[in-house]
Amino acid sequence: MASTSLRGLFENQLQDAYSAETQITKALPKMAKAASSAELKAGFEQHLRETQGQVLRLENIGKQLGIKLSGNTCEATEGLIEEGEEIIQMDLDPDARDAGLIAAAQKVEHYEIAMYGSLCAWAKQLGLGDAASTLHQTLEEEKRTDAKLTQLAEAKVNARAK
Amino acid sequence: MASTSLRGLFENQLQDAYSAETQITKALPKMAKAASSAELKAGFEQHLRETQGQVLRLENIGKQLGIKLSGNTCEATEGLIEEGEEIIQMDLDPDARDAGLIAAAQKVEHYEIAMYGSLCAWAKQLGLGDAASTLHQTLEEEKRTDAKLTQLAEAKVNARAK
Repeated sequence: MASTSLRGLFENQLQDAYSAETQITKALPKMAKAASSAELKAGFEQHLRETQGQVLRLENIGKQLGIKLSGNTCEATEGLIEEGEEIIQMDLDPDARDAGLIAAAQKVEHYEIAMYGSLCAWAKQLGLGDAASTLHQTLEEEKRTDAKLTQLAEAKVNARAK
Repeated sequence: MASTSLRGLFENQLQDAYSAETQITKALPKMAKAASSAELKAGFEQHLRETQGQVLRLENIGKQLGIKLSGNTCEATEGLIEEGEEIIQMDLDPDARDAGLIAAAQKVEHYEIAMYGSLCAWAKQLGLGDAASTLHQTLEEEKRTDAKLTQLAEAKVNARAK
């Protein structure tokens, strides 16, 4: 780690974010495949493309700051993805499974909202303006994805699943 | 599981929430012990008391609905708590450690915000008004805790950690 101060913590957590995002790109196709609602399936597919863009953004930040991103597995993301897999394997009607997939995906989104919220605040504090604005872009994407999932659950999926 | 519809999913995820909350009651004293800032330490201690109340609320919902809550370990929460422990073990200055502890705690809060958000929406959909209002109370507590942590990080801890 580069240092024992905020800069070191920032670099460490940037690694974690990179691991989280690459794990999520592997999980989303499984979530899309398991979804019954065409709208939910399309939502997961769209978010996969967004997530691939978020991985590239992190790689760019790494290049700008001279940090090699790779390696470590983010354990928390692993647990979150596992919850999604448990939903897929549960004995549920298709509509209830969709409700469960949305809930699992929102846990991932909220994890990322917290993660990018901290990274963005730290980048600003460290005077890394470009990194902060890139991280903020992703943060806003995650918030929009979460809001879309809430809307889909409350307007359609939950009522069908009842 | 009680059923393959939304009710079954709700009961399954209520179990998960109970596991998450009991795991969190064990993790918070370690977070409080590791915090340097008196305000952060007090914040973790206050949230521990709140979390103990949230465990009781879940037990009450379980009793009302005839669901026995126990057993299972929520894997995602385990991973989230592990992240907090990694922060504690990292070679960080006290202020940077506080910044990291806040970030780890906010990931847990956001996990719970997503979890209670879904549970609350499902309880409403299922016509379980009392459970929905109890779950909503906890949801609001988690949001307030998250906002307090952001405030503490941005107003004090991050600047000291730089």
